[in-house]
Amino acid sequence: MKLLNYLAGQWVEGEGLGVSLCDPVSAEPVAFASSEGLDLAAALDFARVRANPALQALTFAQRADLLAQLADVLMVNRDSYYQAALSNSGNTAVDAGIDVDGGIGTLKYFSALGKSLGESCFAVEAGMDRLSKEKTFQSAHVLTPLKGVAIHINAFNFPSWGLWEKASVSLLAGVPVFAKPATTSSLLTYLMIKDVVDADILPPGSLSLICGGGHDLMDHVQSSDLVFFTGSADTAIKLRSNANVIRSNVRFSVEADSLNMSLLGADVLAGTPLFDAFIKEVVKEMTTKAGQKCTAIRRIMVPASQIDAVAEALSARLAKVVVGDPRNEGVRMGPLMNKSQQQAAEEGLTVLLQETELVFGGGKDFSPVAEDPAAGCFMQPTLLRCDEPLQAQRIHDTEVFGPVSTLMAYQSESEAWALAQRGGGSLACSVFTADDVLALRAVEMLAVHHGRVLLVNETVQAGHTGHGIVMPQCVHGGPGRAGGGEELGGMRGLKHYMQRTAIQGDVAVLKQLLDAAAII
Amino acid sequence: MKLLNYLAGQWVEGEGLGVSLCDPVSAEPVAFASSEGLDLAAALDFARVRANPALQALTFAQRADLLAQLADVLMVNRDSYYQAALSNSGNTAVDAGIDVDGGIGTLKYFSALGKSLGESCFAVEAGMDRLSKEKTFQSAHVLTPLKGVAIHINAFNFPSWGLWEKASVSLLAGVPVFAKPATTSSLLTYLMIKDVVDADILPPGSLSLICGGGHDLMDHVQSSDLVFFTGSADTAIKLRSNANVIRSNVRFSVEADSLNMSLLGADVLAGTPLFDAFIKEVVKEMTTKAGQKCTAIRRIMVPASQIDAVAEALSARLAKVVVGDPRNEGVRMGPLMNKSQQQAAEEGLTVLLQETELVFGGGKDFSPVAEDPAAGCFMQPTLLRCDEPLQAQRIHDTEVFGPVSTLMAYQSESEAWALAQRGGGSLACSVFTADDVLALRAVEMLAVHHGRVLLVNETVQAGHTGHGIVMPQCVHGGPGRAGGGEELGGMRGLKHYMQRTAIQGDVAVLKQLLDAAAII
Repeated sequence: MKLLNYLAGQWVEGEGLGVSLCDPVSAEPVAFASSEGLDLAAALDFARVRANPALQALTFAQRADLLAQLADVLMVNRDSYYQAALSNSGNTAVDAGIDVDGGIGTLKYFSALGKSLGESCFAVEAGMDRLSKEKTFQSAHVLTPLKGVAIHINAFNFPSWGLWEKASVSLLAGVPVFAKPATTSSLLTYLMIKDVVDADILPPGSLSLICGGGHDLMDHVQSSDLVFFTGSADTAIKLRSNANVIRSNVRFSVEADSLNMSLLGADVLAGTPLFDAFIKEVVKEMTTKAGQKCTAIRRIMVPASQIDAVAEALSARLAKVVVGDPRNEGVRMGPLMNKSQQQAAEEGLTVLLQETELVFGGGKDFSPVAEDPAAGCFMQPTLLRCDEPLQAQRIHDTEVFGPVSTLMAYQSESEAWALAQRGGGSLACSVFTADDVLALRAVEMLAVHHGRVLLVNETVQAGHTGHGIVMPQCVHGGPGRAGGGEELGGMRGLKHYMQRTAIQGDVAVLKQLLDAAAII
Repeated sequence: MKLLNYLAGQWVEGEGLGVSLCDPVSAEPVAFASSEGLDLAAALDFARVRANPALQALTFAQRADLLAQLADVLMVNRDSYYQAALSNSGNTAVDAGIDVDGGIGTLKYFSALGKSLGESCFAVEAGMDRLSKEKTFQSAHVLTPLKGVAIHINAFNFPSWGLWEKASVSLLAGVPVFAKPATTSSLLTYLMIKDVVDADILPPGSLSLICGGGHDLMDHVQSSDLVFFTGSADTAIKLRSNANVIRSNVRFSVEADSLNMSLLGADVLAGTPLFDAFIKEVVKEMTTKAGQKCTAIRRIMVPASQIDAVAEALSARLAKVVVGDPRNEGVRMGPLMNKSQQQAAEEGLTVLLQETELVFGGGKDFSPVAEDPAAGCFMQPTLLRCDEPLQAQRIHDTEVFGPVSTLMAYQSESEAWALAQRGGGSLACSVFTADDVLALRAVEMLAVHHGRVLLVNETVQAGHTGHGIVMPQCVHGGPGRAGGGEELGGMRGLKHYMQRTAIQGDVAVLKQLLDAAAII
């Protein structure tokens, strides 16, 4: 099977044989993808000239309805997506659910949000400001969708969610989407977009797709476009340095991986339900999608007095995680994405072992449940330990993108905050404590270094949405190492796709303007 | 007089003689500035380590009080600033007022805003969101000030306002300021900061200053810092391309010059008060600060049927503008900033003349009122005309940073919108019409290309704040050619200096968090 590209409202085949997309269990190809020889400039122009005005002529409620229709089509074909998530990404059913259902759920969330915005094509911020002694002269701020196209460059680990979490916001704002998924896992993205195109829901050009390399894509962006990138820091640097990107002043948002932390409060003792909830969450984060989530816990900070108990409890749970081919019953963790990911993770582990002791895993005597374990990209869940983490460096700057985390002891609260900061900016952190004062101080100390802080106490220990799960209501993205970008966040997300403009004038005219607009 | 630099709470002299700052009337040096041989990295670190926590330990109300004290000190020394604006920038009293009083007024505005935020050190956005069926698990969004330093690179035309419009927001947010004014006009910035330092108002390191080149400044920014740049597109490209800037994911905002437009509605006929208000505003924009405002009107769009009447009325008014040394009574417009600005403006005028006819000015038989006209950087207010502007290119992309504007005829409303778009993104536009329907459509068509739209009808024609005047209540900045940045906008401006973080947790804990914070 050779994946096609969808450009300017047409399916187009890339030149040559293409790159092979493999099954990470068997290393056998499942599809080929090529974006060679395509006219990307023309495709972007088509989206700008045809799809942009068509989408922006619709009201928020109408765009919301399109999102609902997209979700419906995807629901109908859901089984085939789970199948693709298995064959091309080695996902367990739980892994596939996060990606596939997470994508559909995000579409539904923004559809509901869009309905609440009603029959307007643009938005305003609430309120007016007086600008002079004359009450008649005031200002308001309108939000109008950009006139270009949103280029969404997505990471390999979420071929569905990565697509829809960005596309749902973009389409609701009225900006067409040009999706560039990571080639290696693009089968699922391709299948979803194929079903959506077949259902003929969106105005022509609203959703473009290339399966394969991005080639000269960045040379054709214009100032009315925007680029939302999720992926490695190195690729982000390369794209952001493009001369045309810099010259055009295009909006460019980066979400890169980070060394997300989870903190166990000093008040939480072994044997308590909150302690167990912490252990459970850490293991979930280490093993879901084989640890290949950009929000996964990489640094586990616990009071020095509890580190032995935590190490023991985590090890006991990790020992129960059956790793292998998800087609086998009982397997709870699949392979990494491909051989190069497996190799990078193993190299990273070697780096971390310079500063840590091995508590669990490490790969010796590891036998995944698979027909040909050596062919697959398996890695054993591995727990490391560092008792003097403030003296270490690599545990704070080396992200092993796999099922590997480092347990770190802190001696005092201030040491915990110092450790947190060493991560250099992350997407998400979590704090497990029943002590409200500690929870509030954690926000004070940790928020500036994170895009999201999850506080877990006894009230929510059974009902929270998880350290690593991105909720569409909340902003996603983080400072520093995490790229500095921001996505989602309910209404907030729409503003990234809109120009904010101060309107000054007669208050009577401004009132008419505000009456015609949705308030965001 | 040699200007010193203020780094790490100390006045430091740069090496060598320094660059001369001249009087643009006489071309005589008024001061020298050097930033050679300074340890900028150490100065940035001092601001991060010393000033940042000191400012952030204060409440918004306390920071607001600091701004009020700054304004008070500046008010006391106001006369000396007007004097510096005259001697180093050739400002008339009106020009100096926009810069000096505009800066002080912005400080006062943000001081009042900060007082309203009360006794909190951080902020939240209003409201919470439910994240699951459990009502107990919700999310809120907090805003915490960045842990670094705000590097403010300012343009030569507003040595006071450019400093304070950025510094007031930054200091209120809790982030220390590192000011890098344009060398050529830095005398005024220097004097103001000197008075403020002498008054010992701010925590040490809160306000740093270099007078002279930026040297390796961009090599030392960190991800917790931010860079706000106002100036030329070329310099913006250079700084934004810096490898460290790209690698660090530092926030980088650009405000560049643009080809701002003003539109006369087809309903406004010659002889009416609204027509006169339009003529008056265009002339004011062309001549205030010798046309060296980044928001000044460069493109004047009028109905083809009115272009002769507009050309005549503008010419008549321009003929009355006395240009020369502002020390002479009756002079209403001074020189450009320096010889290189004068030369660049004259070159730009030559470019525009390829596509336009000269209506007024142009420099022949022009005799500014000055002792030595040839020594001064004078330029005659010059009005150009283009009857087929959609066929032209350079009038839409060549900004003459001086008292030069091009009158353009439009045949239909849709032609007017097409012309507007050709500017490629601007800071500000204005629309003069008594027709509410046209005014609202102008917002619909123009807002996405502009940071600000001023609507002038008969009700506000005498009481608006002006096309080119930036109000602190309103966002400032524009898309595309204007750089894509955003500043000010009341509370909105504070968010650029803060990290927005989603906090998820027990609703009872979140309520405590919200109670302790100011709502932005």
